[in-house]
Amino acid sequence: MAGEFEFIEWLRARQRRGGVVRVAAGDDLAVLDWPAGELLVVGVDQVLDGVHFDSRVHSPEAIGAKVMNRNLSDCAAMACWPVAAVVAAALPRGAGVEYAKGLYAGMAEAGRVFDCEIVGGDTGSWDGRLALSVTIMGKSAGVPPVTRSGARVGDGIYVTGRLGGSIGGRHMTFVPRVREARELATKYRVTAMIDLSDGLSRDLGHVCRQSGVGAVISAGSVPVHAGVTLEGALNDGEDYELLFTSPDRVEDPLVTLVGMVTEGDEIWLQTKDQRVRLRARGWEHGL
Amino acid sequence: MAGEFEFIEWLRARQRRGGVVRVAAGDDLAVLDWPAGELLVVGVDQVLDGVHFDSRVHSPEAIGAKVMNRNLSDCAAMACWPVAAVVAAALPRGAGVEYAKGLYAGMAEAGRVFDCEIVGGDTGSWDGRLALSVTIMGKSAGVPPVTRSGARVGDGIYVTGRLGGSIGGRHMTFVPRVREARELATKYRVTAMIDLSDGLSRDLGHVCRQSGVGAVISAGSVPVHAGVTLEGALNDGEDYELLFTSPDRVEDPLVTLVGMVTEGDEIWLQTKDQRVRLRARGWEHGL
Repeated sequence: MAGEFEFIEWLRARQRRGGVVRVAAGDDLAVLDWPAGELLVVGVDQVLDGVHFDSRVHSPEAIGAKVMNRNLSDCAAMACWPVAAVVAAALPRGAGVEYAKGLYAGMAEAGRVFDCEIVGGDTGSWDGRLALSVTIMGKSAGVPPVTRSGARVGDGIYVTGRLGGSIGGRHMTFVPRVREARELATKYRVTAMIDLSDGLSRDLGHVCRQSGVGAVISAGSVPVHAGVTLEGALNDGEDYELLFTSPDRVEDPLVTLVGMVTEGDEIWLQTKDQRVRLRARGWEHGL
Repeated sequence: MAGEFEFIEWLRARQRRGGVVRVAAGDDLAVLDWPAGELLVVGVDQVLDGVHFDSRVHSPEAIGAKVMNRNLSDCAAMACWPVAAVVAAALPRGAGVEYAKGLYAGMAEAGRVFDCEIVGGDTGSWDGRLALSVTIMGKSAGVPPVTRSGARVGDGIYVTGRLGGSIGGRHMTFVPRVREARELATKYRVTAMIDLSDGLSRDLGHVCRQSGVGAVISAGSVPVHAGVTLEGALNDGEDYELLFTSPDRVEDPLVTLVGMVTEGDEIWLQTKDQRVRLRARGWEHGL
């Protein structure tokens, strides 16, 4: 039977040693030489069939790339550099070894763009749908991690790229802003940062709540993707662009000033002739 | 709607700071002060409804405990000390926040037995069954990690506890051998180690293949749980006991000598009057 162990052997053969990896996947756990003095920045993010992708439409390579890129985007949001990842895959029974290899190839290729190696994993099959989770480990590498809680009154609120309409395709094909985040955090004082996964309205809410501040967004300044409404740019989610705050005047062709950090705990949207409450209408899963 | 963010706030309130945790769950990623000179030992292990537990029978607390304990058992198999964990949970839509809290409480309580904190996670709901994965990070803490690949010809093969029949209940309630592993690896030369999750016949196969050796097991020496056949003790799996090899004579009331490491690449079962090939009949998921 083409099974789990064949797949593990295939994985082992593809594994790169060296760098921080002392013992790679295939033992009970992987062993990494974590660089002395480097903070370990760690988190997990999963994708689920019917929620984050559609297995009838998307290839295993594209699904694998998406889950890895979501995790790399979390690294970007902390301005940290990705180092290694481990993977848990729950495969529908009968999906087959080739399908598993496709998922892995998608993840591995996305990771290697930023020198992030898959060092371990757990693959199982079940009478259920495809669920894929990646845990990513990153290092600070000279740039202190940027949290969500450092925004200060008077800081400018900036975003990278253009927002909205990601569900039309970009949610599967985006390139995480790892390098851009590190460049910005090196060149400017970045006081808080988050990647836009739930939508600007909701993600800015996270930053404001965790920083104890309010905000005003200038409706006319929000960079909107062609064919998308302002409403979509504020709420669609899955942009995987960066939102950050800084007391500096950030001048970068990729970056747009969209608002200001204010006192209080409310977020306002300023249009030409009125100011309305910007309510979080981004993505929230019910449990 | 009782949702993801309420649950995240509940998690944040329960989070302990201090120790290695600089920034805990609730930001894009957690930030840990990894101790200088400590290896980072890392892996992931998942449990799936209908495969590793039955959500109609088992409580969320018991399911949470099992997935954490499986990961702690992987730490035990490396003789390393668990430090921190992150969790990905895919919940059936409508499971509710209380159910999620039960899973988390089960995981957190099992982890705290060994001072292992949950520092981050991703919780989502979907039109699918319950899938729960834990990534565990451990440190060597003075005991070099014990891999599967160090068994040498002439080493004794030892197991802890008694084997077989775990499916009757112990697979949900076992206590991982974290402390015992570290004691053994401190007191004796432990050349290879694995935790018995797939069954002795298969797990010993992993050790032999990765060490480039063969083995002979003495049928009469295998410690069998009451009411379980030798066949069950060799193949049932989910014992979560330790199997290890050592050139030392290990004298410990918990530990039984069950065989010897030999040349070659075959594993034999020696009974009173014959020697038969011990074929791997433990647990392998088809993909």
